[in-house]
Amino acid sequence: MSSKMQASQAGQALWSKMPKANAELFALTYGSLVTELVRDYEDPIEVNAQLDRIGHSIGVRCVDELLSKADVAGMGLATQCQNLRDTAEVVAKVGFKMFLGVQAEVGGFSQDQRSFSIYLQDNPLATFVELPAAGDEQYNGDDLRKLKYSNLYCGVIRGALEQVNLKVECNIVRDTLKGDEVNEIRVELKEVLADGAGDDYKEE
Amino acid sequence: MSSKMQASQAGQALWSKMPKANAELFALTYGSLVTELVRDYEDPIEVNAQLDRIGHSIGVRCVDELLSKADVAGMGLATQCQNLRDTAEVVAKVGFKMFLGVQAEVGGFSQDQRSFSIYLQDNPLATFVELPAAGDEQYNGDDLRKLKYSNLYCGVIRGALEQVNLKVECNIVRDTLKGDEVNEIRVELKEVLADGAGDDYKEE
Repeated sequence: MSSKMQASQAGQALWSKMPKANAELFALTYGSLVTELVRDYEDPIEVNAQLDRIGHSIGVRCVDELLSKADVAGMGLATQCQNLRDTAEVVAKVGFKMFLGVQAEVGGFSQDQRSFSIYLQDNPLATFVELPAAGDEQYNGDDLRKLKYSNLYCGVIRGALEQVNLKVECNIVRDTLKGDEVNEIRVELKEVLADGAGDDYKEE
Repeated sequence: MSSKMQASQAGQALWSKMPKANAELFALTYGSLVTELVRDYEDPIEVNAQLDRIGHSIGVRCVDELLSKADVAGMGLATQCQNLRDTAEVVAKVGFKMFLGVQAEVGGFSQDQRSFSIYLQDNPLATFVELPAAGDEQYNGDDLRKLKYSNLYCGVIRGALEQVNLKVECNIVRDTLKGDEVNEIRVELKEVLADGAGDDYKEE
């Protein structure tokens, strides 16, 4: 993967081939999942953890799908992701596009090149969502402000990258649901796992 | 709505305009929702009821979306659904197409014209699902055979038709997950609710 353009073209090509569902029904179904978890766990911190866990198992499947579809299309993404910058581009431009139909941007690399941000202007998971204001007692506003509604993303990215031997931590650090201008997911590389494709990984 | 062809064209036209998500991610997310419910409620009959409840609230939103989108497109479906046959066509050919990208078929009208079946060859909710065999003790097969995995559909149809003053009962009576050739949802009209659009409803 030598340029942003390539990742972005690959994402568009794969997206066009995927079977589609209605994005609104998807958002409503995800909302039902979050609602169930809020009902079960009450503590929003625990709900965030559960969304991350569920996302992880979805991410493990998504990356297989992405790599095999890209292989079939002759894109060979796996061999081209030789550093964290390339990998970040594939996550944002291929992964987000292929699975959500939206493109994300990459930026904010740390000096040691071990962490970066994914920026998402539109968040398809949160189409119909409004969080209650902080201090809103009727709807338990203070507590729900701790909810990371879209924390599934963090789990998905973590699960997907783990499959290609990259152990990362992910956090939603800005959230349009909470009034921020953009959705920002911070990804930090913790470890390149020993066996397999990770061996040649260049940390630059 | 005077012919099957019209409903089918309307469905295709609306589907082409809807924002899309990846059908596989949608199926995985729905699977996570079912898994959470199975974990919470244990009793599969209760899980079915919960899926129906969640579907109901989604259906209430979907029908608004369908009617308003159809209105904007000059289709005026609401005024054209003057009997259960027309309504059934709209549910199958417009509703299923618009929200899931698949078309369903209608048939099996009872003699009194108060019940019918919706047939679905492909079930987008169940893409990655296999239920354990009956008698499979390791995976709790006997119990999980009672699970109506796609019971969300029943709730959605029930919720959607309630919004247009039709009180129905819905049941999944055949299920490809359980080895049947087709997915069949039986819909039975229980009552035409008093106020509003239902007044002129012809029971034929």
